[in-house]
Amino acid sequence: MPSERIDAESLKSLAAAALAAAGARTEDAAASARILVEADLMGIGTHGVVRVPGYADRLRSGGIDARAVPALERRAPSLALVDGGNALGTVVGTRALEAAIAIAAETGIAYVGCRHSNHFGAIAPYAREACEAGYVLFAGTNASTTMPPWGGAELRLGNNPMCIAAPGPDGVHFILDMAMSVAARGKIRAALAAGAPIPEGWAADARGRPTTDPAEALAGFLLPFGAHKGSGLAMAVDLLSAVLPGARFLTDVTSWVDRPGERQGIGHFFLLLDPARLVGREAFAAAMARFRQIVRETPAADLSQPVLLPGERELARRAAALRDGVEIPAALLAELRSLA
Amino acid sequence: MPSERIDAESLKSLAAAALAAAGARTEDAAASARILVEADLMGIGTHGVVRVPGYADRLRSGGIDARAVPALERRAPSLALVDGGNALGTVVGTRALEAAIAIAAETGIAYVGCRHSNHFGAIAPYAREACEAGYVLFAGTNASTTMPPWGGAELRLGNNPMCIAAPGPDGVHFILDMAMSVAARGKIRAALAAGAPIPEGWAADARGRPTTDPAEALAGFLLPFGAHKGSGLAMAVDLLSAVLPGARFLTDVTSWVDRPGERQGIGHFFLLLDPARLVGREAFAAAMARFRQIVRETPAADLSQPVLLPGERELARRAAALRDGVEIPAALLAELRSLA
Repeated sequence: MPSERIDAESLKSLAAAALAAAGARTEDAAASARILVEADLMGIGTHGVVRVPGYADRLRSGGIDARAVPALERRAPSLALVDGGNALGTVVGTRALEAAIAIAAETGIAYVGCRHSNHFGAIAPYAREACEAGYVLFAGTNASTTMPPWGGAELRLGNNPMCIAAPGPDGVHFILDMAMSVAARGKIRAALAAGAPIPEGWAADARGRPTTDPAEALAGFLLPFGAHKGSGLAMAVDLLSAVLPGARFLTDVTSWVDRPGERQGIGHFFLLLDPARLVGREAFAAAMARFRQIVRETPAADLSQPVLLPGERELARRAAALRDGVEIPAALLAELRSLA
Repeated sequence: MPSERIDAESLKSLAAAALAAAGARTEDAAASARILVEADLMGIGTHGVVRVPGYADRLRSGGIDARAVPALERRAPSLALVDGGNALGTVVGTRALEAAIAIAAETGIAYVGCRHSNHFGAIAPYAREACEAGYVLFAGTNASTTMPPWGGAELRLGNNPMCIAAPGPDGVHFILDMAMSVAARGKIRAALAAGAPIPEGWAADARGRPTTDPAEALAGFLLPFGAHKGSGLAMAVDLLSAVLPGARFLTDVTSWVDRPGERQGIGHFFLLLDPARLVGREAFAAAMARFRQIVRETPAADLSQPVLLPGERELARRAAALRDGVEIPAALLAELRSLA
């Protein structure tokens, strides 16, 4: 696919204009564009501005409520819930993270859970913001069903991603953002678009047989990493991000692919901890520097592939993309320009 | 191996007597025996009373301080740290969980981190207690190095387990307790003791070559599940359980196998959330019941293997073992009796 290089600010303006043209309020469009472009900057293209046309469609069809204002309810000094009101998930997520940062600044810890929400992008952009503000983050979201629970032969479980992140030295934060399948559904969609097969082990067809055909995989289901472990983690994320805040879970979640005109009703959570209130600010910074050093100095199995911490590669890509611009498929840019 | 069936209370008394004979205070020996026997009841034999001889050795050699009293420091209304003072890890863990439950009862959320601690058993017994008290739990511990970080060829990372748990209907709680390797080191030790090979994919030898020889595996390293994902999770657990409370991490942890006479210096954490302060007590109970129903009613890939939630199998074993007694290898029982 031919691609174009575009600077981050221009891409944000373009994505925001496309969302605003679909009915989003200016500030909501800007917040959403920010989350999506951050994903593109980090090289998480499956969760970047490629999502704008889908978000715009759902804003237009009323599947997402363009006028909704997420409502924050403080349930205890360190606990809050956000009723997303079926707003853009990126707007709900941004509001919830802001609240979590404010609460953690006050009390040293925050859990903010969201309900009545929609797809909120990748978690890494939120995690980077929490780290920049000095907090350790544990966050997750549930999603439409794409996997059976381990041992099952029917889609009942979302590929619910979670993220654990901690502020690192020189802005190189530890950011582990992972979904529970061996591979992301977006990568299978990309293979389908590129006419390429998928590796074995990624997915099964609708009858549970292993497949390398991306179309059969999309009609079937993703396989969890680590068998029962990945399946159990996906359930655990459903509990934290949906059951606790009162959102829809498992098969009650509406698929934005199959029924884009309906509310998804999913949930997210952001849990923040302030290292300054625990081991202390300086001790934490020193420990994170030592942690990084020990990991990076591990002799590599393949000398051309030094050992990295989760997030290092993504933050290096981000720095390069901020400097040189970010590569976006030309067809997608044309679509965004047409939407805008 | 021949085994004997023994009732849980007798096994607790025996384990407690063995630890007390090695110098542990009566109440510390009882608390430790409780955690270990709970693991045996749940079928987690690798983390049960099989640990007593090792704990006793370390109490005798001074590797663990039999007289230490863990000190709790409240850092904020919902945050506390426990300085284990090199006590038995099971004593530190028990004290920290008690504190976390008390704090969560007061504020709806608690993070309690521990430092200067030692091996604290399996997490599932602590998780079951938190669930019985009505709380959602996220907990973890770090450990001696048994894995390289992904892409590395040297042991630098513990097989740091984590647990996510939530109270379920009829006392059948959701308890996902998992380490980050494909298989637990204890299972490799058990294979060595039984003279059996281990399955491929569990471990590599000291030069990083795959092996099915348990002795070579123990001299080499465990492989993480999900490649970079399991490796990243092990690091994330190290951050939450050791970096945040100021404990030793990565290669700074002392191995209780190689240097049993020295303090391990590891850390743990317990994070509790009160569903009653979030979605509400009744709504949470109803959602957990529906969650279980949706998962259990999933058509099974193998009809003889119904789909279960994490923890179901363990809690069913526990109920059976409370009724019928728990099977313990006869040689281990003889050793415990001799220690006691």
